[in-house]
Amino acid sequence: MSNSSPSQLSIDSARLLARLRQLGNTGRNSAGQLTRLAASDEDKLGRDLLVSWLREAGLSVSVDAIGNIFGIWEAGASTEQAALMIGSHIDTVVNAGIYDGCYGVLAALAVIETLQRCGARPSRRIVLAAFTNEEGVRYQPDMTGSLVYAGGYSLDAALAAVGSDGSVLGEELRRIGYAGPGTPGFLRPAIYLELHIEQGPILESEGYTIGAVQDVQGISWQRVIINGAANHAGTTPIAMRRDAGLAAARAITFLRDRLAAAPPTVATVGTVRFEPDAINIIPSRAVFTVDLRDPDEQRLQSAERELARYLKHLEQQENVTVDLERIVRFEPVAFDQELVKRIEEAAAQRGLKHRRMTSGAGHDAQMMARICPAAMIFVPSHDGISHNPLEHTDEADLIAGANVLLDVVVGLLSS
Amino acid sequence: MSNSSPSQLSIDSARLLARLRQLGNTGRNSAGQLTRLAASDEDKLGRDLLVSWLREAGLSVSVDAIGNIFGIWEAGASTEQAALMIGSHIDTVVNAGIYDGCYGVLAALAVIETLQRCGARPSRRIVLAAFTNEEGVRYQPDMTGSLVYAGGYSLDAALAAVGSDGSVLGEELRRIGYAGPGTPGFLRPAIYLELHIEQGPILESEGYTIGAVQDVQGISWQRVIINGAANHAGTTPIAMRRDAGLAAARAITFLRDRLAAAPPTVATVGTVRFEPDAINIIPSRAVFTVDLRDPDEQRLQSAERELARYLKHLEQQENVTVDLERIVRFEPVAFDQELVKRIEEAAAQRGLKHRRMTSGAGHDAQMMARICPAAMIFVPSHDGISHNPLEHTDEADLIAGANVLLDVVVGLLSS
Repeated sequence: MSNSSPSQLSIDSARLLARLRQLGNTGRNSAGQLTRLAASDEDKLGRDLLVSWLREAGLSVSVDAIGNIFGIWEAGASTEQAALMIGSHIDTVVNAGIYDGCYGVLAALAVIETLQRCGARPSRRIVLAAFTNEEGVRYQPDMTGSLVYAGGYSLDAALAAVGSDGSVLGEELRRIGYAGPGTPGFLRPAIYLELHIEQGPILESEGYTIGAVQDVQGISWQRVIINGAANHAGTTPIAMRRDAGLAAARAITFLRDRLAAAPPTVATVGTVRFEPDAINIIPSRAVFTVDLRDPDEQRLQSAERELARYLKHLEQQENVTVDLERIVRFEPVAFDQELVKRIEEAAAQRGLKHRRMTSGAGHDAQMMARICPAAMIFVPSHDGISHNPLEHTDEADLIAGANVLLDVVVGLLSS
Repeated sequence: MSNSSPSQLSIDSARLLARLRQLGNTGRNSAGQLTRLAASDEDKLGRDLLVSWLREAGLSVSVDAIGNIFGIWEAGASTEQAALMIGSHIDTVVNAGIYDGCYGVLAALAVIETLQRCGARPSRRIVLAAFTNEEGVRYQPDMTGSLVYAGGYSLDAALAAVGSDGSVLGEELRRIGYAGPGTPGFLRPAIYLELHIEQGPILESEGYTIGAVQDVQGISWQRVIINGAANHAGTTPIAMRRDAGLAAARAITFLRDRLAAAPPTVATVGTVRFEPDAINIIPSRAVFTVDLRDPDEQRLQSAERELARYLKHLEQQENVTVDLERIVRFEPVAFDQELVKRIEEAAAQRGLKHRRMTSGAGHDAQMMARICPAAMIFVPSHDGISHNPLEHTDEADLIAGANVLLDVVVGLLSS
């Protein structure tokens, strides 16, 4: 495969930005907050808008049984040859920004429209994908649509998922008209590409425009439950205490100082609860969550082991008992090295500062990597903020990212 | 003053134990829980029962404006000579045990009855005291009755206190018939003695029956508010984090390892709260309470300063901001050394293992120490448990403590 040459093409940036705003204004509540939870009424509004644009672009729209939406540009290409798939998701978190997911889907549409506009006749079908319930706010697991599509989770189990509001995913998809006839996985792509905002601060803080994402961190979520003994804060000598709160604090500092002492391992304790929760009573119980991430599975396992060992040690040191519960576990995913190189080359040829990087968040691309070569392109997130109305990427970066996606697609079609 | 000789007397132990049980069964709810919050209907039941026993003993009952109950044994003694006061409180926490406070009041009654029984003609009046709202559960501050009595808090402010249930202390005292005519402090005693359960594990674990309490720890309650920045747990590199939860954990371990590293200083963090409280979001805010206690005021102040200094250091180290709010502050109280020595001697002469000790909890005696020599006698609490239905002191220890109180009173009367 030769170096891809610059396509000399550019996406219609005004149209991309206008659609981002229009989709971003679809599903807002009376307070102006954007919330399009998977398979909700608001999600239906967003889906309907997307489908109308896909049809306007002359794409053949197909919905599968888990509600994934595909816009297929046949372009007279042979169906013998596996398609090139580009996409992301359009469901959102509660009170979301407008870029997470939507940017990748609408940029994919912009790429197809650009190729159409200049009369391209691609050798293989190009398929836009918008996967169901990437966010996992309403239903578990997150990335449901791509996970089921890639055969990593049963369709029946996914459709039976009971939501945080008591609803059932399968029923809700039927209700909003997006329980389609297609069998998930019906179209096995040759390649999957996903353009996404970084949702972290690295690109911006280091002055890069393009991230060539080479892997996705593995994620380990655990719950730690420490049991000690409640006692009077004034009358209980230190040596006689069984302080569950202190033990939790020691574990939290251990996680930072020992397990996440050097990149790329990260550890976060986002929630903690003491009982009985009184100013003058030594905590009898402390419960906290641990979010451990690492792009290397061996290192992630080793961090889990070290934590478990430290908690055993704490049982002795603080005279407490510790239980550890697994909540979520995803292995790290390595993307396709050749695709990553193509992204770097495309960025370089446009004179864009770029770097290889690891995705700290989960994405549909990591599920699609189970069935085809996959990779992702990141653009900067202002202050690293995401899942928040303050989520922002400069227009120039949004356009640059979409053009890099365009160039990589052109390169792949011509190779 | 000579060593006091054994009085050869003993209190009526069966009667003391029976009354403890009877008062302990007064004010239970339908679930069998004992809750006699200050100036409540249940407190009235307890007060009425106590007053009936005081009258049976021929004591002159006097109630002051803050609801403190006094049972005065005139015994023909001159009113010129200051009285000897012994007592405690009979209000309880929610779902309480039967010994905290009640034991000291009922043992005082047993002491007076013993002296009556053997025809003693004390040189000075002996006054039993039951102070209002020692526990501070319904109204703030705790130890209201003795604090007002000792002139440390204004009567008007105390009566205007609004309770956790929205009630007003002064109105509730009137309602239950215990807003008396006496001016708090109307009777300034020569000496105040208080017998109490330890509410901690020291006596039991070290094998002592009697604690001669020489001082009460100073108490410092503060609230620490740490502000950092919420960010994605997967995409935010460690070096860019402003993790308020981690900073809180560091402060909690600092408190134990540096400020409470050696007795007698104790430090407790009983409550903590993270925001936004999500498993995959770095905490933007952590709020926790600090309970610091020390029998030495200089050392307590130094611990407060060291904590403040460490929090300043944390601001730099973790790139967070820290605010510190004072909630409660009591200076340590030293009891009267001569009284403490008398308690030790009385215990020794009964062959009871005894030790000097510091009270970790607050007691009415520390307020009375503002206006007269005061001291306390402690007896063991099983497993150090208090403020709990499991609160327990062996009968032999209850009887031993009451007899030591009797001997100290006899010694004081004859000296």
